[in-house]
Amino acid sequence: MSEFRQDIVSQHWVLFAPNRASRPEDFKHAPATPNPKTVPEHDITCPFCAGKEEFNLEVAAHPKGKNWKVRVILNKFEALGHSGGRERSDFYRVREGIGDHEVVVTRPHNVLTGFLSDELMDLNLKVYQERMTELSNHSEVEYVHILQNHGFAGGASLIHPHSQIFATPFVPEHLHDEVTGCYVFFKSEGACIYCEMILKEISDRERIILDNEDFLVFAPFAARVPYAMRIIPKRHQASFMEITAKERKSLGLVLKIVLQKLHYKLNNPAYNYYIHSLPISHSLLSRYDERSYHWHLEILPRLNVWGGFELGSDVYVNTVLPEMSADIFRQK
Amino acid sequence: MSEFRQDIVSQHWVLFAPNRASRPEDFKHAPATPNPKTVPEHDITCPFCAGKEEFNLEVAAHPKGKNWKVRVILNKFEALGHSGGRERSDFYRVREGIGDHEVVVTRPHNVLTGFLSDELMDLNLKVYQERMTELSNHSEVEYVHILQNHGFAGGASLIHPHSQIFATPFVPEHLHDEVTGCYVFFKSEGACIYCEMILKEISDRERIILDNEDFLVFAPFAARVPYAMRIIPKRHQASFMEITAKERKSLGLVLKIVLQKLHYKLNNPAYNYYIHSLPISHSLLSRYDERSYHWHLEILPRLNVWGGFELGSDVYVNTVLPEMSADIFRQK
Repeated sequence: MSEFRQDIVSQHWVLFAPNRASRPEDFKHAPATPNPKTVPEHDITCPFCAGKEEFNLEVAAHPKGKNWKVRVILNKFEALGHSGGRERSDFYRVREGIGDHEVVVTRPHNVLTGFLSDELMDLNLKVYQERMTELSNHSEVEYVHILQNHGFAGGASLIHPHSQIFATPFVPEHLHDEVTGCYVFFKSEGACIYCEMILKEISDRERIILDNEDFLVFAPFAARVPYAMRIIPKRHQASFMEITAKERKSLGLVLKIVLQKLHYKLNNPAYNYYIHSLPISHSLLSRYDERSYHWHLEILPRLNVWGGFELGSDVYVNTVLPEMSADIFRQK
Repeated sequence: MSEFRQDIVSQHWVLFAPNRASRPEDFKHAPATPNPKTVPEHDITCPFCAGKEEFNLEVAAHPKGKNWKVRVILNKFEALGHSGGRERSDFYRVREGIGDHEVVVTRPHNVLTGFLSDELMDLNLKVYQERMTELSNHSEVEYVHILQNHGFAGGASLIHPHSQIFATPFVPEHLHDEVTGCYVFFKSEGACIYCEMILKEISDRERIILDNEDFLVFAPFAARVPYAMRIIPKRHQASFMEITAKERKSLGLVLKIVLQKLHYKLNNPAYNYYIHSLPISHSLLSRYDERSYHWHLEILPRLNVWGGFELGSDVYVNTVLPEMSADIFRQK
């Protein structure tokens, strides 16, 4: 018995086919990274470890100097830059790969992000906020995408925990779809669709994973992958840049709890997380509306492989209903 | 030096960052399937092999009976079906998982699709055409998606070569985007955008992989993954169902050549291929326009892993320029 569910914001469809394998133990995979107990706190072969500072261009460090705890560097294999590029348009459309590509490194080589100290987690999030604010001031930047890839199956090539920041010269399609969905809902209903979603989730309860004063964590109704989670501030807030110090601390604690749940319930799976935040409007585009958009952080475990159905249709098959996923995460 | 390229049909953006690893040998991967020489022609543990007919519900077989060469069966773990399902709509949107999910099996356990005999390849394509025609007649079906997953990294769980057919009760988003792009182009330019693309590719030459009387194969200008290929009929043809017997034979030969190139140049990589064809219009939706749409077959090698950039932005990073990819495929 399968069903299609539509993401009411982006309009994407997901096919839930829960007759297929779906329990956590059905997803056979090796842990995304070696057991932290077998990994040294410092690895001299790791380009992100202390002692390798000179090999990377530093953007920021907290604290400054060799005792940094969180360090921002330029991505050595940066996908975006400020040199070269070419603008062409005959039949096809091309634009320069202008923008920024940074890496945020937390110091300990063997401490996964979900297991950082409260202090270091908060510093990590503070750096996200600072970089987003700084990059948003650049005139060519229209979106700052902050993400973490964990494990090879999540697209990470190094085990040293790190996040990435892409500052792009246009609003990426996924954000464009979301912002448009929010704008259309706001125009017709006079409310933020995510604020309404929070009320709906609290009323339904069955998809809730964690609920505290500042944040709600739930399994999205039309999640594209098994065991996905969404963390969202309860207070309406369009941009992650607006988060207060108190809220940021609270977010850090919530992120630690759910990443640890993921780690233990699903055997340290590969995952991606990313923040979706109101795009930067340098012009007066009415769709970038503070009232209609609401930032959130999505966590996508990478347990399954997309095939020709997903790649050819942009419809995603998910074998785990979010109601079941939330139930598993709620258990001790 | 990176650049963004836009798919002029679907409007998707791809970030080409060719300063990263990009030669075929930079993609380290085990072959997607064991060396065919080490695989038996018939495996009694394989559910798709001859002798296991009773374990699957047969939809069609050519020829009928136990000497079938190509057999169509219902997918045992079907994602779509005709039982159960539920329709709900409160805050979220749900529709029943109504539709069909079939598997097309070619008989030899150890002959990869690219290495089928000319006769068996043509029979395989003939079955695609027959199933698409048959399923298109069902009143609930709006699209028939035909695809092949090869290798675990391509989403295949069995090594016995097979294809899958999904008949869906709505037009998937990817097709909707393409059909819309074609329709808009046709309205403004009075021509099929793919016909124009064929002329452009033949004029540019640098992305062409193969060019014969009936078909053109080229590396798409804004390919989402390294070493992608597009096979397209030179004659304007909206639906794959319209292919003539002569054209189908020609397609089979072309598909064999390019799948073999893929196999040898990229060490038997996992891949997906799928056909994009004009959606079925049971009503008079003007966008499903025979003049503006043009079917094609896409081959996507699965050499890289998408991370939080791709999943969170719907923009894809590709490290291999199609001009380089085509150059490699053109070599003997």
